[in-house]
Amino acid sequence: MRQSNLFTKTRKEAPADEVSGNAKLLIRAGFINKEMAGVYDLLPLGFKVVNNIRKIVSEEMERLGSEEIIMSSLQNKEIWKKTGRWDEATVDVWFKSKLKNDNEVGFGWSHEEPIVEMMKSFLASYHDLPRYVHQFQNKMRNEVRAKSGIIRCREFLMKDMYAFCATEEANLDFYKKTTVAYINVFKRIGLGDITFVTSASGGVFTDKFSHEFQTICETGEDVIYVNKEKKIAINEEIYNEETVNKLGMKMKDFEKEKSAEVGNIFNFGTSKCEQMGLSFIDKDGTRKPVHLSSYGIGITRLMGVLVDVFSDARGIVWPEAIAPFRVHLLTLKNSDKIAEVAERLYVTLTEAGIEVLYDDRDESTGVKLNDCDLIGIPYRLIISEKTLASNSVELKKRSSEKVELIKTDEVLNRLG
Amino acid sequence: MRQSNLFTKTRKEAPADEVSGNAKLLIRAGFINKEMAGVYDLLPLGFKVVNNIRKIVSEEMERLGSEEIIMSSLQNKEIWKKTGRWDEATVDVWFKSKLKNDNEVGFGWSHEEPIVEMMKSFLASYHDLPRYVHQFQNKMRNEVRAKSGIIRCREFLMKDMYAFCATEEANLDFYKKTTVAYINVFKRIGLGDITFVTSASGGVFTDKFSHEFQTICETGEDVIYVNKEKKIAINEEIYNEETVNKLGMKMKDFEKEKSAEVGNIFNFGTSKCEQMGLSFIDKDGTRKPVHLSSYGIGITRLMGVLVDVFSDARGIVWPEAIAPFRVHLLTLKNSDKIAEVAERLYVTLTEAGIEVLYDDRDESTGVKLNDCDLIGIPYRLIISEKTLASNSVELKKRSSEKVELIKTDEVLNRLG
Repeated sequence: MRQSNLFTKTRKEAPADEVSGNAKLLIRAGFINKEMAGVYDLLPLGFKVVNNIRKIVSEEMERLGSEEIIMSSLQNKEIWKKTGRWDEATVDVWFKSKLKNDNEVGFGWSHEEPIVEMMKSFLASYHDLPRYVHQFQNKMRNEVRAKSGIIRCREFLMKDMYAFCATEEANLDFYKKTTVAYINVFKRIGLGDITFVTSASGGVFTDKFSHEFQTICETGEDVIYVNKEKKIAINEEIYNEETVNKLGMKMKDFEKEKSAEVGNIFNFGTSKCEQMGLSFIDKDGTRKPVHLSSYGIGITRLMGVLVDVFSDARGIVWPEAIAPFRVHLLTLKNSDKIAEVAERLYVTLTEAGIEVLYDDRDESTGVKLNDCDLIGIPYRLIISEKTLASNSVELKKRSSEKVELIKTDEVLNRLG
Repeated sequence: MRQSNLFTKTRKEAPADEVSGNAKLLIRAGFINKEMAGVYDLLPLGFKVVNNIRKIVSEEMERLGSEEIIMSSLQNKEIWKKTGRWDEATVDVWFKSKLKNDNEVGFGWSHEEPIVEMMKSFLASYHDLPRYVHQFQNKMRNEVRAKSGIIRCREFLMKDMYAFCATEEANLDFYKKTTVAYINVFKRIGLGDITFVTSASGGVFTDKFSHEFQTICETGEDVIYVNKEKKIAINEEIYNEETVNKLGMKMKDFEKEKSAEVGNIFNFGTSKCEQMGLSFIDKDGTRKPVHLSSYGIGITRLMGVLVDVFSDARGIVWPEAIAPFRVHLLTLKNSDKIAEVAERLYVTLTEAGIEVLYDDRDESTGVKLNDCDLIGIPYRLIISEKTLASNSVELKKRSSEKVELIKTDEVLNRLG
């Protein structure tokens, strides 16, 4: 797209009340807009990044055989009362409001209860199991503190998946498959090397247990103990001699790191479906409760973690898989000749399916270079009088300081 | 997709408390699930239909040069106080809640105010205009009555677009272009013949004025007076001698029809931006308020209107452009031979990019035929012992009673 058509502009300063590093950069570069603490809008660049993350997650969930749905935000209190989670003493992040008839309604901070309730219409016998459903849904959570930018929001996009199984074995098998799919998601997004599966409860694989996916991140709110060589990490809460010994390791084998939770997976066993009354008739003719597990990834949170992990003093450094564009094409000093070559290159790359942000604005060299570094697109191409003299363009990766001149007609080969 | 993999099932009866025709059919066919009055979840089939509508609308908005964003649901009351629309005496559909610090927050029922506020960061001079932005956003409205199924919801997906222009002429020009784009949307969706542009205010094209797009629909909540031949319609509120005479027509030239509002467009002139303080420096160096117009289409509402318009005693009859699948492939009595031919046809069509729902379930002929009519996919293909005897399959359009036998190897040609 032509940058002159992009309505957002970069800014030198983030809002004075913004304390988070990821939000400061994302606001300055024009990816998000702040409505209030913990509430942000997605502007065109941010919308593209989130869609790129979403696409990767979506592909992995579909590969697991999950069907996509979307549940309402508005929540029926009668459903949540069945498990005691309507009570604010149990769940302290509810936003609640009232219908015109004075009945209370809630806004979804999670969706286990309504999904289990809904499934009662569709699951009757063992023939109907297993079933996997997922959604990309806007959660609302009334957080006390909302100071980590888009890492902890009052409103955020989450992928949540739910597995309904007939047996503990089937549930556990899907739990393991999803663990692999999640590892794949983080690898594809560019966080593979620094993301670890940690046991959140320290429990064994019996009934209820859960795991987290933690990404090492200076600005994270959690702490994990990591052995990078063996790719093992332990949550702070259960980091002790006993846990370490069970792994056949020693306390000194682990380093303390700050981290951000980017995903979590949870096995409810049969407890949730027993509470809610979701059961099925098994092969033997008896009625049994359904096994449930749930699987979350914070989509907008991931954008924040990526910015905290991949940025430098000049701006964001997007990993290729989720960058808003692949190439940032800049013209320095807009002569007719420069504009003509740039235009041609822009069309050539775009037609080849390469996403290009073309800075065709009438701005100074300094402004263009600074904006380019701030926005953080993986490849920068510069066309100037100097490069034209040798029928070349200047190519630089955002993640490297190396600059090279390549012939204009070789650009497509290099970037395709 | 294989129907055995679809978690939803059809049902004979809608919930007892459901009074709306569209919601009854959509629930019975497994497209939506009811959470409470006016609040529905989108199940896999409904999710696909909504995405098909969304894709068409999206293409038309992008063609207008609009950029996609997504604003938060959570609303900052300070922004809405600027126009007096935080007040419940002015806007009676707010859902409001409280943050932990006791500050009030609202849930977005519309987004003019926050979008105008956000644009203050990006619009400074005439160089920055015009700008068009749109979003597909989940609106929340605390409706007193919510008895029209997904035609009037407490939570619904809306496409809202906003145009920011330097001059009245530019704003009016975009208003007219969008009117054409909207007409195109309704044509592509299959509602072109029965959708009319009506003036909502009866006002002339001066400052504030608006138009509605009304679809003739037995279950609609509005009334319009229509001359079908001349493709002219008038809202009930302004249907009188004066209005009719202005058009050079007579009262008897119009028929009364019930209708559903499927879109509305609104010109705020400079009023909204004056209230909110959004201005720009014009060519002449003076500061001027920005001209604003807004453009809505109710995406989930459209699904309801389509069902009310396109259904018969047996179920839904989806128009081709937005049907969840193009072909419903049924096997009657599953012999190995039938399954083998069906399997091959399913793969052939799918690989050719034709979306097929393949009813591979072990159900009776009656159940399969009834489900097929209820779900309403445009083309039905049946493979049975009888059709196989002549190397054929039975083809029937959902919208017609005509049944024909065609050779199995001609199916792709006919449906491709």
